[in-house]
Amino acid sequence: MAEVNASFSLEEGRELLLAGLKPTGRVKIKLAEAPGRILAEPVVAPRSFPPFPRSRVDGYALGLPPAGREVPAGGASGKIYRLVATVAAGSCPAVTLGPGTAAAIFTGARLPEGTMTVIPRELAERQGDLVIVPELPPGGSFMEAAGSEVAAGERVLAAGTELGPAEIGLLAALGLTEITVYRSPRAVLASSGSELVELPGLRGGCPGGRQAGGEAISPVASQVQALGPRIYNSNFYALAAAASRDGARVIPLGPLADELEEQVEAYRKALEEGDVLLTTGGAGGSIRDLTAAAFTGAGGEILFTTIRMRPGRRVIAARRGDKLLLGLPGNPPAALVAYYLLAAPVIRALGGREVLPATFPAVLTAAIDKPRPERAFIWARAWPGTTGWQVAPLPRRPGGIRAAIGANALIDLPAGPAPGAGEEVRVVLLSARGSQYGLPDNK
Amino acid sequence: MAEVNASFSLEEGRELLLAGLKPTGRVKIKLAEAPGRILAEPVVAPRSFPPFPRSRVDGYALGLPPAGREVPAGGASGKIYRLVATVAAGSCPAVTLGPGTAAAIFTGARLPEGTMTVIPRELAERQGDLVIVPELPPGGSFMEAAGSEVAAGERVLAAGTELGPAEIGLLAALGLTEITVYRSPRAVLASSGSELVELPGLRGGCPGGRQAGGEAISPVASQVQALGPRIYNSNFYALAAAASRDGARVIPLGPLADELEEQVEAYRKALEEGDVLLTTGGAGGSIRDLTAAAFTGAGGEILFTTIRMRPGRRVIAARRGDKLLLGLPGNPPAALVAYYLLAAPVIRALGGREVLPATFPAVLTAAIDKPRPERAFIWARAWPGTTGWQVAPLPRRPGGIRAAIGANALIDLPAGPAPGAGEEVRVVLLSARGSQYGLPDNK
Repeated sequence: MAEVNASFSLEEGRELLLAGLKPTGRVKIKLAEAPGRILAEPVVAPRSFPPFPRSRVDGYALGLPPAGREVPAGGASGKIYRLVATVAAGSCPAVTLGPGTAAAIFTGARLPEGTMTVIPRELAERQGDLVIVPELPPGGSFMEAAGSEVAAGERVLAAGTELGPAEIGLLAALGLTEITVYRSPRAVLASSGSELVELPGLRGGCPGGRQAGGEAISPVASQVQALGPRIYNSNFYALAAAASRDGARVIPLGPLADELEEQVEAYRKALEEGDVLLTTGGAGGSIRDLTAAAFTGAGGEILFTTIRMRPGRRVIAARRGDKLLLGLPGNPPAALVAYYLLAAPVIRALGGREVLPATFPAVLTAAIDKPRPERAFIWARAWPGTTGWQVAPLPRRPGGIRAAIGANALIDLPAGPAPGAGEEVRVVLLSARGSQYGLPDNK
Repeated sequence: MAEVNASFSLEEGRELLLAGLKPTGRVKIKLAEAPGRILAEPVVAPRSFPPFPRSRVDGYALGLPPAGREVPAGGASGKIYRLVATVAAGSCPAVTLGPGTAAAIFTGARLPEGTMTVIPRELAERQGDLVIVPELPPGGSFMEAAGSEVAAGERVLAAGTELGPAEIGLLAALGLTEITVYRSPRAVLASSGSELVELPGLRGGCPGGRQAGGEAISPVASQVQALGPRIYNSNFYALAAAASRDGARVIPLGPLADELEEQVEAYRKALEEGDVLLTTGGAGGSIRDLTAAAFTGAGGEILFTTIRMRPGRRVIAARRGDKLLLGLPGNPPAALVAYYLLAAPVIRALGGREVLPATFPAVLTAAIDKPRPERAFIWARAWPGTTGWQVAPLPRRPGGIRAAIGANALIDLPAGPAPGAGEEVRVVLLSARGSQYGLPDNK
């Protein structure tokens, strides 16, 4: 095992991980698969938009002004045009407008050749096949030239753009049915610990004797199989959900026993298949904590083993070539904190996504329960209040499997006294869960 | 067509739409499909967690104190226990601890029967098969009872909870492989307008003559087929991306011509297949704006036709039984504004999701370009700054196909003078796009 045992701040650790990290590749996909993906190259418009000159309104397309017909006609005064056609949206204009002629036209319809201007219906007066047109109001432009919104050859989207609804709409308007985006980074997810079993679980409890300490089973528990001395591999499901949301393609490696050779072998293979390896458990400093040794055995060079924060203090990071190995804590909420603050930036950078979880100030609606001797991240719920963002720390619970339930944010709390209600703290927003998100009803 | 032509504020319109709206149903899904879904019923723990008493640390499980062996032993002082077993995580303890006996134990391992307490390795001294244990520090509890985190039968998640990574992890830890969530609402998406064609487009331009006004084609445009007087149905792709993100299952209805009977027939069918119908185009007040008439023809009762805001002023809303029909503007950014502010709440409510896009204050980094005579929503980019949220209005562009590119927020601007840089405005956050999101490079 490597000698490195350096302790870093979160920011230093993140910098080490992200140094030189680049998207892992690019792939051509169909427009229908594009939402949420990241452009790997700029988009250049293959054609202009609108592709033809069109009307912005229901009204009349007018040719050159009529010569000598500027006399009053039936009470209305203005220029008199003769109506020679009607052009509906989606139809080809059958005429060319000469001087003194007009065509009734509808919003979005292609303008006939010879169109000089367009006037909205309510500003003109129609009498049979004549249209009487007053002076046009200044500045009113009711026609759009071809290419007035996008010129062919223009760069309309930059590499790195996330394709949301508006960007998808633009691509469709330009007729782009294939787009080159960054490849989804492949994240191999393993959980280490001989106490872990895969769902739906192992049959058979511990032989002999009653179940020490209870193992209370409710009436509905018949569906749950006996686990013996083991627990379900829950970290995999939690991290798979998080990594998928950050754009990763998740490759499951399954739970691994506390056996060094087995882990080294598994991690070697993982580095062939994946761009990044995330493990949970075995990140502590005891003789049964094998992660650092297994990372080294699989060819990794240790970057750090400790980050100065709670929870998530023990995080093993290693690099092998352009692949990263990250050993997160085995405790579920600690694993998630380390995921959000250290692994998510890596996965997002590999996918060409924006990287840093930015912090911003929010006002505490309840006091922090106790001072912390070290920088701490506290599960919380944040929401936009009328006067600004507010944040409530979640109630503390024994153990931790429920610590992060209902959270959408982490409070980034420096070492020192516990701030009280009404004081400002900094928060990291973890998801777009908004103000309506209710805390779970826990009786 | 109905006589109703009432104009409402955004909030009034939204209230009309949401009145009595309920999730459309529930469905049982596998855990792997659960991320991002919404619980349709509370989750009751089928078993306790941890399922067996376990150690929080690497150390020693101790039986009852030894009788008469509290003498100093080799320099160390304390109680002397005899080591009778080693229990690794995941293994069944082979012993029952009697008075004065101990077992070496590892984090997460099941405690032997008879365990009274656990002491971390670093607090004890081992001499061969003896363990010398000093007075335990007060308050230190290094063992977890079965059920100490979750008791069997306890309600751990409320109906309406969004299943994020932490909640998924909890379900996995409890061995729940099937979960009942709200059914995804079915959103039928249609675009009306005879000028629309489906991608990849129609062959053949307008016959005869040169292409009026240009139709500039770039060197790469050979892949784009001629559209004649038509444009691509881009609103469908934009709205499909947005509605999917809000949890809808999208049913495409394709572009519809400006023909009342065709639309009535299509919308009737849509209401059989979908929970909500979204259309774009035809929402204005001219004779070719058929949406209101088509909604009425399809059995809808008009709720409103105008919302006092820009853009998105013309929005047709109708109800037929428990189905809603929403006619959004045809202009792409206006359609998106109306989607986010009126349609998204409907889709989210039908899926049991949190509903209201909450607004919060942010400081303008650039002035709003001009005063607005009416409440306006302005495409913007918001990010959490060191001192709080900041927001920049996006540059205005001709037309609108690019108006929303790069936006992650809307500024909710009341009628009146244009606020300057440094002034506070209210924003609606539309996505979790964070501070690192770069504006597209448009030369």
